[in-house]
Amino acid sequence: MKADSAPYYAVIFSNKLKPSAPELGYAKVAEQMQALAEQQPGYLGVESVRDAQLGITVSYWRDEDAIREWRNHVDHQVARNLGREQFYQSYHLRVAKVEREYHFEAEPIDG
Amino acid sequence: MKADSAPYYAVIFSNKLKPSAPELGYAKVAEQMQALAEQQPGYLGVESVRDAQLGITVSYWRDEDAIREWRNHVDHQVARNLGREQFYQSYHLRVAKVEREYHFEAEPIDG
Repeated sequence: MKADSAPYYAVIFSNKLKPSAPELGYAKVAEQMQALAEQQPGYLGVESVRDAQLGITVSYWRDEDAIREWRNHVDHQVARNLGREQFYQSYHLRVAKVEREYHFEAEPIDG
Repeated sequence: MKADSAPYYAVIFSNKLKPSAPELGYAKVAEQMQALAEQQPGYLGVESVRDAQLGITVSYWRDEDAIREWRNHVDHQVARNLGREQFYQSYHLRVAKVEREYHFEAEPIDG
């Protein structure tokens, strides 16, 4: 994530895929959306993990305008519709204002 | 997650484990802390995923007081120290106020 300090915004997207999502091309669409998001003004970064049960993607944005512009991007709208029709069994999307943050990095020699 | 509506708080904890974390008992400590968090006043729920590279745990709290009380819990303090000394290569912890949220659930017949 690029250097930036609170306050900024986080979009917390947790989701469960349908069993058929992989064969319907979910990974390719997700990859395209990630590449597109990175080009958006106000995009700060993303953290994403998926296991067999759940996926969590947290994307970070400078402000609410940046989130709104990304939501209104036409290719993103098409992908979201596809997601609801084909890929997702369920999801939660939360828009949250990051108020403070802490970073920890172990000493390299400590490993 | 229990029924609750915005605003409430999210603690976004993304982390990388040291290669030695599993053999040092990371899973057991994480499990104990999860059980303890669930008993805290103002705890609303958690979503957690880990793959080989990254773990993301998002816990949800009624308000900042609930987060502060959990942070000050003595067993949690001990576990956090252990985490920094033994388990984590790095982490980011972000405290964020959830301002709005959306939920989607596919029609059962659609799967």
